[in-house]
Amino acid sequence: MTTPFANLPAPPYYAVIFSSRRRDGDDDGYGAAAERMVELAREQPGFLGVESTRGADGFGITVSYWESEEAIRAWRRHAEHAATREQGRARWYAHFEIRVAKVERAYGWDAGGGQHGE
Amino acid sequence: MTTPFANLPAPPYYAVIFSSRRRDGDDDGYGAAAERMVELAREQPGFLGVESTRGADGFGITVSYWESEEAIRAWRRHAEHAATREQGRARWYAHFEIRVAKVERAYGWDAGGGQHGE
Repeated sequence: MTTPFANLPAPPYYAVIFSSRRRDGDDDGYGAAAERMVELAREQPGFLGVESTRGADGFGITVSYWESEEAIRAWRRHAEHAATREQGRARWYAHFEIRVAKVERAYGWDAGGGQHGE
Repeated sequence: MTTPFANLPAPPYYAVIFSSRRRDGDDDGYGAAAERMVELAREQPGFLGVESTRGADGFGITVSYWESEEAIRAWRRHAEHAATREQGRARWYAHFEIRVAKVERAYGWDAGGGQHGE
């Protein structure tokens, strides 16, 4: 099983918190486009990782992690990403919110391994 | 329908990004405890809002938003919250990661209302 958790370096780094509600209706190419965007993001300079989930109610949160604000700006300017965002507005999303944040501290816990970080 | 989106002031403010994987098995009181924690968080000084979702695979992301780092630290020290966190480690979670971040900019979009923020 691949892990849904991003394997990140020690802070500081940046997070883009993308919360969205899908429109009702069929997939309409959404799944393939979402997978392609993750694949493309992974190729970008300064990309650190991504975590993503969506509930049965159509509300989802995706957090991508980046080395710098410049890396985030460059990803926003990426032509294929920009074109897919346009499709998102036109076809897939009812509403979304984006918050760009600087991660200052991080820690975690595993049932097998206990606490890590901080 | 209540909105799953947090209604936040203009940045700056703080985000606690909590990503987790549930253990397999039945609910074991998880749902009631999770609801209670949100209810309790809403009563804390400096709480701004929360967004949360979990997929069918048991991986979830909850992002809570706070006015200051001091508000986050106070919530972490809250006795009932601390006791429930212990239950989370003992009963409900296989793994979790927490990242504390300062939100520097934010914007959003709605199919009916267009772009807002930034």
